[in-house]
Amino acid sequence: MSGWLVIAGLGPGDAALITPEVSAALADATDVLGYTPYVARVAARAGLNLHASDNREELDRARHGLSLAASGRKAVIVSSGDPGVFAMAAAVFEVLEEQPGWLALDIRVLPGITAMLAAAAKAGAPLGHDFCAINLSDNLKPWAVIEKRLRLAAQADFAMAFYNPRSQSRPDGFGKALDILREVCEPERLVIFARAVSTPQEHISVVKLAEATPEMADMRTIVLVGNSQTKQAGRFVYTPRSAP
Amino acid sequence: MSGWLVIAGLGPGDAALITPEVSAALADATDVLGYTPYVARVAARAGLNLHASDNREELDRARHGLSLAASGRKAVIVSSGDPGVFAMAAAVFEVLEEQPGWLALDIRVLPGITAMLAAAAKAGAPLGHDFCAINLSDNLKPWAVIEKRLRLAAQADFAMAFYNPRSQSRPDGFGKALDILREVCEPERLVIFARAVSTPQEHISVVKLAEATPEMADMRTIVLVGNSQTKQAGRFVYTPRSAP
Repeated sequence: MSGWLVIAGLGPGDAALITPEVSAALADATDVLGYTPYVARVAARAGLNLHASDNREELDRARHGLSLAASGRKAVIVSSGDPGVFAMAAAVFEVLEEQPGWLALDIRVLPGITAMLAAAAKAGAPLGHDFCAINLSDNLKPWAVIEKRLRLAAQADFAMAFYNPRSQSRPDGFGKALDILREVCEPERLVIFARAVSTPQEHISVVKLAEATPEMADMRTIVLVGNSQTKQAGRFVYTPRSAP
Repeated sequence: MSGWLVIAGLGPGDAALITPEVSAALADATDVLGYTPYVARVAARAGLNLHASDNREELDRARHGLSLAASGRKAVIVSSGDPGVFAMAAAVFEVLEEQPGWLALDIRVLPGITAMLAAAAKAGAPLGHDFCAINLSDNLKPWAVIEKRLRLAAQADFAMAFYNPRSQSRPDGFGKALDILREVCEPERLVIFARAVSTPQEHISVVKLAEATPEMADMRTIVLVGNSQTKQAGRFVYTPRSAP
């Protein structure tokens, strides 16, 4: 038996942002598992089984991938972006901790271009100095933890990237996050809304914090917030390498 | 004239981690500029001029790349990792702000696999929950800013990635950073030292904060610090997706 499990990042959307390492794993695989729109990005071919599942089924998907590897198959669990950033890698290790018998398997995580870095590149270099990444979904953590982190990150003068800022089932959190930022940051602070980066639907907009509204974000948007030094040079937004 | 400037990320070392988008830009280029060891990663070919320079010459290199593009050449400034994370993209925009005449040029930033995400993938998923990235070099910011950010990041219970933890010219900062973490975090906090990730010299070690010493890091090391929930599942280190 020579089964394996790879947890791979497909990047934000454009096939030109998928690493050769990930493409090689997909070419060798017998099975690909993932959230339906991510599996749809993998080309079908003879001998490749595609297992698409719903967004909320991460632990079941992780168990399925591990069981396929244990039965000798070559399985790739695909995430958008990077699998280690608010994606499937942690879910696989949560299952492994419950079921340590699977630890003997060949398991590898292959990095990908995560959405915040693709968005930052399109905008300029807004994350060019110290920064943080916060998942604004309160599905897996109390909202109070998010509020605390936002306040401390603003006090630390980190640039910030917000994943999952807003969805139909969580319409209100992002507005509360903007209110907290307005308490701590100046109204001129630059905010970037990057939607569907590197896809045909890509749209990037830059506003001041005072002008930012919750409706500017949806579930396909990454929000980047500059630090106190972030500025514009023509069409580009960047954060200088130095801090006062 | 159809010159352009691309600021591109080569990833952490392995050619299999260079995106096809970056490879295509390098194939089209007439000129490649960068720090000597990064330029050495680009294959020489007829018609390609390689311009290697020293580590401390970022602004001169940015001006050179912009002037080449202005003269109609196709220039790529290469960074290791991602060009927007403690790398060349911000330096180019700093120059553009001084010399806005160059803003009319075709300038693009192409993302890459940044060292912290390559290191995290090798270790498991230590950045699987909210996290921050801090450059521990005080060449461009006061050490007091670094100390403040470390304390606030620990209070926020972010996992952390430290770039440039220690060099021959800055032997003492990382030890001070560890002392600050020991004031705020429990001694069992997991710390990952990831050296030369994805190269033949790769070495990953995992220790508890109480056991971490400054000598474990050098200028080729990325240091990842877990949050309060980070744990081990066999050989893997991961941070659960949920927070209490």
